[in-house]
Amino acid sequence: MTEKEVCLEGVSTELKFFNLINFQIIMTSFIKNLSYSFKPQRFLKPLGFIVIILLHTQSAVAQLQKTEPPFWFSGMKNPELQIMFYGKNIAQYDVSVSNNVVISNVTKTENPNYVFVTINTQNVAPGELTFSFKSKNKTAFTKKYELKPRRKDSALREGFDSSDMIYLLMPDRFANGNPNNDSTPDTAEKADRSKPGSRHGGDIEGIIQHLDYLHELGATALWSTPLCEDNDERGSYHGYGQSDVYKIDSRYGTNDDYLRLSSELHKRGMKLILDYVTNHWGKHWTLQDMPTYDWLHQFPGYAQTNYRMTTQFDQNASAIDAKMCMDGWFVKSMPDLNQSNELMLNYLTQNAIWWIEYANLDGFRVDTYSYCDKAGIAKWTKAITDEYPYFNIVGEVWMHDQAQMAYWQKDSKIGAIQNYNSYLPSVMDFTLHDAFGNVFNEDKHEWDKGIIKVYENFTNDFLYPDINNILVFAENHDTQRFNQIYPDIRKYKMAMALVATVRGIPQLYTGSEIGMKGDKNQGDADIRRDFPGGWPGDANNAFTKAGRTAEQNAYFDYTAQLFNWRKNKAVIHTGKTTQYVPENNVYVYFRHNDKESVMVVVNNSNEKQTVKTNRFAENIRNATRGKDVISGQTFALENEFSLDAKSALILELE
Amino acid sequence: MTEKEVCLEGVSTELKFFNLINFQIIMTSFIKNLSYSFKPQRFLKPLGFIVIILLHTQSAVAQLQKTEPPFWFSGMKNPELQIMFYGKNIAQYDVSVSNNVVISNVTKTENPNYVFVTINTQNVAPGELTFSFKSKNKTAFTKKYELKPRRKDSALREGFDSSDMIYLLMPDRFANGNPNNDSTPDTAEKADRSKPGSRHGGDIEGIIQHLDYLHELGATALWSTPLCEDNDERGSYHGYGQSDVYKIDSRYGTNDDYLRLSSELHKRGMKLILDYVTNHWGKHWTLQDMPTYDWLHQFPGYAQTNYRMTTQFDQNASAIDAKMCMDGWFVKSMPDLNQSNELMLNYLTQNAIWWIEYANLDGFRVDTYSYCDKAGIAKWTKAITDEYPYFNIVGEVWMHDQAQMAYWQKDSKIGAIQNYNSYLPSVMDFTLHDAFGNVFNEDKHEWDKGIIKVYENFTNDFLYPDINNILVFAENHDTQRFNQIYPDIRKYKMAMALVATVRGIPQLYTGSEIGMKGDKNQGDADIRRDFPGGWPGDANNAFTKAGRTAEQNAYFDYTAQLFNWRKNKAVIHTGKTTQYVPENNVYVYFRHNDKESVMVVVNNSNEKQTVKTNRFAENIRNATRGKDVISGQTFALENEFSLDAKSALILELE
Repeated sequence: MTEKEVCLEGVSTELKFFNLINFQIIMTSFIKNLSYSFKPQRFLKPLGFIVIILLHTQSAVAQLQKTEPPFWFSGMKNPELQIMFYGKNIAQYDVSVSNNVVISNVTKTENPNYVFVTINTQNVAPGELTFSFKSKNKTAFTKKYELKPRRKDSALREGFDSSDMIYLLMPDRFANGNPNNDSTPDTAEKADRSKPGSRHGGDIEGIIQHLDYLHELGATALWSTPLCEDNDERGSYHGYGQSDVYKIDSRYGTNDDYLRLSSELHKRGMKLILDYVTNHWGKHWTLQDMPTYDWLHQFPGYAQTNYRMTTQFDQNASAIDAKMCMDGWFVKSMPDLNQSNELMLNYLTQNAIWWIEYANLDGFRVDTYSYCDKAGIAKWTKAITDEYPYFNIVGEVWMHDQAQMAYWQKDSKIGAIQNYNSYLPSVMDFTLHDAFGNVFNEDKHEWDKGIIKVYENFTNDFLYPDINNILVFAENHDTQRFNQIYPDIRKYKMAMALVATVRGIPQLYTGSEIGMKGDKNQGDADIRRDFPGGWPGDANNAFTKAGRTAEQNAYFDYTAQLFNWRKNKAVIHTGKTTQYVPENNVYVYFRHNDKESVMVVVNNSNEKQTVKTNRFAENIRNATRGKDVISGQTFALENEFSLDAKSALILELE
Repeated sequence: MTEKEVCLEGVSTELKFFNLINFQIIMTSFIKNLSYSFKPQRFLKPLGFIVIILLHTQSAVAQLQKTEPPFWFSGMKNPELQIMFYGKNIAQYDVSVSNNVVISNVTKTENPNYVFVTINTQNVAPGELTFSFKSKNKTAFTKKYELKPRRKDSALREGFDSSDMIYLLMPDRFANGNPNNDSTPDTAEKADRSKPGSRHGGDIEGIIQHLDYLHELGATALWSTPLCEDNDERGSYHGYGQSDVYKIDSRYGTNDDYLRLSSELHKRGMKLILDYVTNHWGKHWTLQDMPTYDWLHQFPGYAQTNYRMTTQFDQNASAIDAKMCMDGWFVKSMPDLNQSNELMLNYLTQNAIWWIEYANLDGFRVDTYSYCDKAGIAKWTKAITDEYPYFNIVGEVWMHDQAQMAYWQKDSKIGAIQNYNSYLPSVMDFTLHDAFGNVFNEDKHEWDKGIIKVYENFTNDFLYPDINNILVFAENHDTQRFNQIYPDIRKYKMAMALVATVRGIPQLYTGSEIGMKGDKNQGDADIRRDFPGGWPGDANNAFTKAGRTAEQNAYFDYTAQLFNWRKNKAVIHTGKTTQYVPENNVYVYFRHNDKESVMVVVNNSNEKQTVKTNRFAENIRNATRGKDVISGQTFALENEFSLDAKSALILELE
């Protein structure tokens, strides 16, 4: 869907039907609704004066203001499609559809401005359907609706996996490829780069322009924080308060730009991950005139979540605490969606599937996954993975206990204790992130301090049903910045060596690779600084070798070397892990399969350490040498070797 | 078995058989073996000169030096009984048994001094059997063997459970009821109360003399650390290095004394828990002349466990680390038993069952449970609970993660991930103990600090297959003393209020109840101080109200009031828990069943706090008042009530 299509939505078809009687009502409603669903300025601009004339001469434009999904696809596994039609008093009409398509359900709610029509698309060929809205057997208006053809093998698309390295960026902060859309007429917040928490102008064009940079770095997948429209007056740059989930925010570009991003990534063999938000919206257009009271979680007065996600499985939790966690709002500006309302759930499910199919996606990252209605979010996830069995979805399940995180992964035996299956393929290794929080400053070897914390994280791997499908990361856009905690490239290298070689899917947060700092204690904006070189006139351009400082190049080169090496290392992607209890603050583990073996040695002590190899005989086997993938240096494995303080070796055994 | 019986073991029966030819060999062996299995002095004393004469005139005494179990019971569910006969070259004989009893197996090992004879006792009435040892069809000697009758309903005995309060003591440090056995001829280490780590003289008689004290305190079960003989030269007071597992250490008394302890407890409606050690022994008599090389875990040179119990389930653990954890010795003086050797495993199993049946036990506490061979210890546990389905066994599984601890509880869904079932009915809530480590000093309410740590411990209760069968405690004989960390009776009261009212089985460590301190950093002996008043002449006698200081009485009275109240409170024993996310460092939870409801409020802040009751409506229901079980004070529940800084209320709802 292009921007133009979006603009014409609710106008083109409806223009044909003029109903004099309803003229006044419809116009009032339409104009009123324009004020939040479209900014009049934006609507008027592209169509110009002609539209103004039409509005004044044909009232039927107002009968149908929104149709979502705006179009659909032929040949989906789930043939049922529930279309939400929105218009003043639309519920008064009887709905029918062309082409002998079966309407399996029509749902009307307490709000007469909505009708939800479910059609069965089984064996319906791609093409145009026509919905007719009748009153007293007279067609009041019709709506053309397209079923597009699917891409070949669309259902079999393979999502991101442990062979990938995911690069996470915030589009407003990465690169400003099109300075003309920094502020747009249809969005409230205007660009002001002087304010850390305001819009800075980064956009899709900026990302596209730097895909080669990401490719050079060794990234194979892109996770951008949300790109759909977020029309909040303040702080909209993060994109988690969406106002239209079928439309790219005009400050980032157009829906077509997003398709182009997808295509440009795929050209490079890279993958696109959309950051989906199921838990909450911002000023979404439906929220001004909700289909049902329980479209959202509403309270008498405002109620904020208690953020205690443990209440979702704690058998001792009070009902009120569990409810407040799940139903309370994340923040005041983000109304909490009610996924136990089937209409809402279906809206979210279809929207997600629509984006996969439309933008040819390779995965979702789902925001605040475990804040959603527990049963509802599982249905959402199952519906998507039923449709795309090899698609990947990683949920933000931010907990500090492996059993609690493993609970949320698909087919979890922990979840099964409570007969729960989220169907979520992937979760994030937040406990590893917790360990990273201070471990590299713990120079002394103690029973429970030092690199043992990293080792211990992996002792619970058996709790996860699919340990290779877990995101590993040193930081993300919500955490303290790694290079702020550790302004020491040696520690960065140790962390990256771990992230790149332990089981799971490595994820890098933009700026890590050039040593970028940022202090969460100064506010979230400080951990979301602009990428240097992303704006015309930036003094420092970290996108190029020449533009980077020597220090930035040191960070970049290590990172690029590491992740480019990793790209084709099946032994890292899917090999077994064997780890050894750390001694002297030195952690040794192997990744191995039938063909290859990689020995990783991380010396977290502040002294040079000697590693005696005989202890690792079961993994070293007949290998006599190990070649460090970074330095190319060869280490003899017969007796012992040494490595520097605060350093890591990644040895391919020979 | 009395002490006298033990002394005569290997003598009485064998005296009848004199075999001149073997005289020299046998005598040499016997005298040699005496040096470790019996101290000659001890052996000679009770029998006097007559025995000396016999030894010099009858060689057959040496044919059979040990028979274990020394006797058995008729009517066990498992009819198989494997008797270990020990004597010089005993394997050369053919063994038969009287009364038409079937010998189902005879196992000989590489050591000719052992023979393991398995008989089937099904339908064999109580009475005496006679084993005959023949060579070339001539009976060389015989051995009478008793099958005792079982107590009525012995198999159906009910173990300790959540209705109990377990009092843990170390017998050497509790009370010296019999100063005559402080040092004994047959044990190496002599009493020296001036040395913290030496024997101090406490004994079974001392415990028996103070059972009324325990009863007054509200204890309903006694867990004494091991009472079997520990003949180490040093540090034997803790009893975990056993030298004879069929015999009470003579410094504690006799086997008969132990039976008397059991009977005196049962008279008072109290239960007896034996501290069983499956993982290791001390200078056990078999270790001087082992049945098989793999009777123990042996290494070339000494190998100590790495104590990393996570290796027992870590799917990434190297084989060598897992082996070193399980097979390495706990300490140098404690040889590590090989529970994957079926002979050893059976020896341990029968020994455990023997004690249950013999001493009429109500439970085991099993030392270092998760250091044992994983498969072996599960077989041991299953064999016991197959024999006594309602018996209780709590294992020391000292981990810091609920999933890891829950792994070891019977029918664990976590264990099932790896197809493991320990069959262990009960584990210890070490994570609650971890939380207790600093929580009462965390005065400020923070996201992850303060009483929230205690709350969070219970959010993972669903991981345990049997949450009521979990030991809760503020300290034990291996941890830092609670009153050392918190020299503040208010904090003690908060902890005890929690221990007494949360789910599970409360366990108190001796001295807690009088505010006893002790610093583990000074060595284990300091957390195992003598109980004041347990020794004649002690200036402070904390066993009596008059003898206790005012401070001791304050601790004691609170404890006694609390646990005596708990005794008959089914709502605490088995009621459901509902907890609320703490606010202002105040934790509120309810224990409730169909009939009763108890509201517990713990104010861990350093200020008086007001508790608004409307949040707890789902638990308060129609109750209007709550009566504090300690003060008797009544609190109206309509609106709010306040409670002091660092205090707890236990309100019975009315």
